[in-house]
Amino acid sequence: MKPVKVGICGLGTVGGGTFNVLKRNADEISRRAGRRIIVEEVGARRPNPDCDTKGVQVTQDIFDVATNPEIDVVVELIGGYEVARDLVMTAIENGKHVVTANKALIAVHGNEIFEAAQRKNVMVAFEASVAGGIPIIKAIREGLSANQINWLTGIINGTGNFILTEMRDKGRDFADVLAEAQALGYAEADPTFDVEGIDAAHKLTILASLAFGIPLQFEKAYTEGISKITRDDVQYAEELGYRIKHLGVSRRTEAGVELRVHPTMVPESALLANVNGVMNAVLVDGDAVGQTMYYGAGAGAEPTASAVVADIVDVVRTLTADRDNRVPHLAFQPGELSDLPVLPVEQIETGYYLRMQALEQPGVLAQVTSILGDKGINIEAIIQKETREEQVPVIILTQRVQEQKMNEAIAAIEALGAICGSVTRIRVEHLAD
Amino acid sequence: MKPVKVGICGLGTVGGGTFNVLKRNADEISRRAGRRIIVEEVGARRPNPDCDTKGVQVTQDIFDVATNPEIDVVVELIGGYEVARDLVMTAIENGKHVVTANKALIAVHGNEIFEAAQRKNVMVAFEASVAGGIPIIKAIREGLSANQINWLTGIINGTGNFILTEMRDKGRDFADVLAEAQALGYAEADPTFDVEGIDAAHKLTILASLAFGIPLQFEKAYTEGISKITRDDVQYAEELGYRIKHLGVSRRTEAGVELRVHPTMVPESALLANVNGVMNAVLVDGDAVGQTMYYGAGAGAEPTASAVVADIVDVVRTLTADRDNRVPHLAFQPGELSDLPVLPVEQIETGYYLRMQALEQPGVLAQVTSILGDKGINIEAIIQKETREEQVPVIILTQRVQEQKMNEAIAAIEALGAICGSVTRIRVEHLAD
Repeated sequence: MKPVKVGICGLGTVGGGTFNVLKRNADEISRRAGRRIIVEEVGARRPNPDCDTKGVQVTQDIFDVATNPEIDVVVELIGGYEVARDLVMTAIENGKHVVTANKALIAVHGNEIFEAAQRKNVMVAFEASVAGGIPIIKAIREGLSANQINWLTGIINGTGNFILTEMRDKGRDFADVLAEAQALGYAEADPTFDVEGIDAAHKLTILASLAFGIPLQFEKAYTEGISKITRDDVQYAEELGYRIKHLGVSRRTEAGVELRVHPTMVPESALLANVNGVMNAVLVDGDAVGQTMYYGAGAGAEPTASAVVADIVDVVRTLTADRDNRVPHLAFQPGELSDLPVLPVEQIETGYYLRMQALEQPGVLAQVTSILGDKGINIEAIIQKETREEQVPVIILTQRVQEQKMNEAIAAIEALGAICGSVTRIRVEHLAD
Repeated sequence: MKPVKVGICGLGTVGGGTFNVLKRNADEISRRAGRRIIVEEVGARRPNPDCDTKGVQVTQDIFDVATNPEIDVVVELIGGYEVARDLVMTAIENGKHVVTANKALIAVHGNEIFEAAQRKNVMVAFEASVAGGIPIIKAIREGLSANQINWLTGIINGTGNFILTEMRDKGRDFADVLAEAQALGYAEADPTFDVEGIDAAHKLTILASLAFGIPLQFEKAYTEGISKITRDDVQYAEELGYRIKHLGVSRRTEAGVELRVHPTMVPESALLANVNGVMNAVLVDGDAVGQTMYYGAGAGAEPTASAVVADIVDVVRTLTADRDNRVPHLAFQPGELSDLPVLPVEQIETGYYLRMQALEQPGVLAQVTSILGDKGINIEAIIQKETREEQVPVIILTQRVQEQKMNEAIAAIEALGAICGSVTRIRVEHLAD
C-alpha cells in the first residue's frame, strides 16, 4: 500500500522523540499499520542533536510543512497557544490531518479546531495531550463507549506528584522539593503551570469533554495548586489514613459537571494513593464497567512520542473510512454534545479536611463543631494535638457536603475569637461511589 | 444514519449484561456511535429473568441468529469451544461481523477464525475475552502501536487473585478460601480452569499474540496453578518484602517468547502487588512508553458487557472502512506475523524463591549454596528459621537465572541427605527491566 507521509513541526523534546521512535520502530509500526509511515519534512527553528535528519527535508518555516502538498498528516509539537493555533488551522485548511500533543491548544481552542476539521473532513488526534504515553483518550472515547461515565479523577501532572511524593517520603518542605525538581528538569523555571494546576486543568478539561460529551470549557475549571500544602498537612493526612495528591476531578451530577483541580486527600489503600513520583494515573468510574484505572509516564520524550505515533497510525487507518464512521473528536458526535453546565466550585460536593489554630481554652471545640452541625456538616474524625504552646492545632475530617455550606462554616469558624488566622482546607475524595 | 442490527447468542451472565447495557445506555451509545444499535434477535435456550426482551425476536436456535439476513453483527456469548466455534464460523460464512467474549475460543481456534474472517472481509472483535471491562486489547493493539513491546504481565484471573488476597490478609489456607469463593460465586464448582491457571493461560496467549505479533499458541503456554501455595509461603514472601500473585508473564527475548502462568513473587511496593480481591490488572513494558498499567474488574455481567458493547461500536465504525485499513485482529497485519518461537519453560529466565526443609545439622547451608554457586546462581537473601524441630525451614531468594539451571540445582539439592522431601519453588519478577 502507498506510504503515508507526515510532516513534523517542532523538534524539541517530544518532536525529537517522535522522529526517533518513527525511525527506530519503522518496521514494527508498518507491520501494524499495513503501510510505511515516512517523515517527509521537518519544520524546526534549530536542529536536535539527538536526531539524525539526514535524507529528510528540513525547514525553519513550520508553515511550509503545513502547506506542503506531499504531506498527509501534520504533527504539531511546537507547543504554546497562538502560533500552534495558526499552524493547525493552516494545516486543516490545506486538507491535512493533524496530530498534536498540545493540551493548552486543545483545551482553549479545541472547539474551534474541531469545527474546522469537521468542515474539511480531516482528523485532529490528541492522545499525547493528556497523561503522556497512557492511552487514556482512546480508553475513554472508545474502550468505555458503552458506559455512562459517572466521574473520573487523576494524577495528571507529574511534577506536582513528584513534589508531593518527596514531601511525604522525606518530610521535606514544598519550596525545597520544588527547587530540586527544577534542578532535575522535572519542573520548568517558571513552575506556575505545573504547581498551580493550570496544566492539570487543561488536561482535565479535555477528559471531561470526552467523558460527558460537553464542549471544552477550560475557562470554567476551578484550579487550586499545591504551593500552600505544608509538611504538617502531609503528616496529619497520614495519621488519618490518607495521602495528599494533586487531583483533577470531574463528576457528572444532575445539576451539571464538576470540573476542578486541587490538592485532595485520598485513602492510603486506594491504588491512586500509591501512584508515586512523576507517574500519572487516571481513574474512571462508568455505570457498566465500574472503576478502571490507567497508569504510566505522563511526560518525557519517548512516552509522549508513543502516543503521538499511535495517533498517526490511527489517522492512517481512517484515511479510507467515511467521515461519519470515524471516532468523533470529543467522543460524542458533533451534533450530540450536551449543554449540561459546568458547575461553579461552590456547587461541588466533597469531603473536607480542615486545619486550624485554636487558643488553648475551654469550649473552643464545642463552638467549632456546633457551627458545622448548624450547617448540616457531619464530622468523621477530629484530632486535637497536645502542645505546650498557647495555640493548639485542631484537625477535622468531614463527610461530603456542598462547598457553599463549607465556605459559610469556615467563615463563621474564622470569626470565632478563639480561632487564630485562617482555616486550611483540603478536599477529600473516597473514590468509592 | 441507518441503524445497525445485532443478534445476541447466549443470554446468561454476560449475554444478559450486554442486552441490558445496550438498552439502558442506548442514547449515550448512539450519541457516540452516530447511529442506533438495535438488538434484532436473541438466541438463548432459556430466558434471563433480568432481561426484558419484550419486542425482541427470541429463538432457542442460536444458528438462526447467525444466518438471519437482517443481522449485521453476531455477538457470541455462549462460551465453550465447539458449538461456539461452529456458531462463529457460520456467522462469518454468512458475512456477519462477530463480537465474542470467549477467551477459550480465541486462544484455541483464533488463528482459523481470523483467517476465515479475513477471507470474508468481516471483523471478529474480542476485547471482552481478556480482563473483562479493561480495554487492554485496544490499549496494546492501538494505544501502544508505536512500541516494540518488551514484556507484559498481569493478574488476569479474579478468582485466583481473590484467593491469594484472602490468604495473605487473613492468614487462611488455600482450601478454606476456595470453598468460600465457591460459595460466593467467584469460583466455579469445578475450579480447575481458574486455580490451575488455564483461564489465565488462554488470556495470556491472546495478549502475547497482540504484543509480539505471533500466531496464537495456547498449546505452548506453561501453566502452573496456585493450589500448592501454603500459608508459610505467603508469610515468608511478606518477610522478604514481596507478595505472591498468580501472574501471566510474556516476554520477548532474542531466542523467542516466554509464555507462562504461575504463582509469582513481586515486590510489595509494586502497584501490581497492591491489586487485590477479584480485580485484574495488566502491566505492559514498551520500548518508547516504558511501563503502563491497566486496572479494573476482570469479570462480571456489566464489566464484561462494557467491553462487548465497545467492540460492537468499534465494528460499527469500521463498516465503511476498507479492509486493509482496519485494525488487524492480532494487532499486526495477517501477512506480517512473526515466527519467533514460544520458548519451553526450561528456557525462561526469572528469579526464584526456594523453600526446603533441612535437617538441623552443620554444613547443610554450605552444601546448598555451593550447589547454587556451581550453577552460577546468585543468592539475594537467605532466611533460616530457628526451631526446636529436627527439621528447619530454609528460604532462599535468587537472582535471575535460566529455569534449566535451576531445575538442575533443585535436583541436586533434593538429592542431599540433609534435605527432606522436595524443594518448593516460586518464581520472582521484579517488574523493573
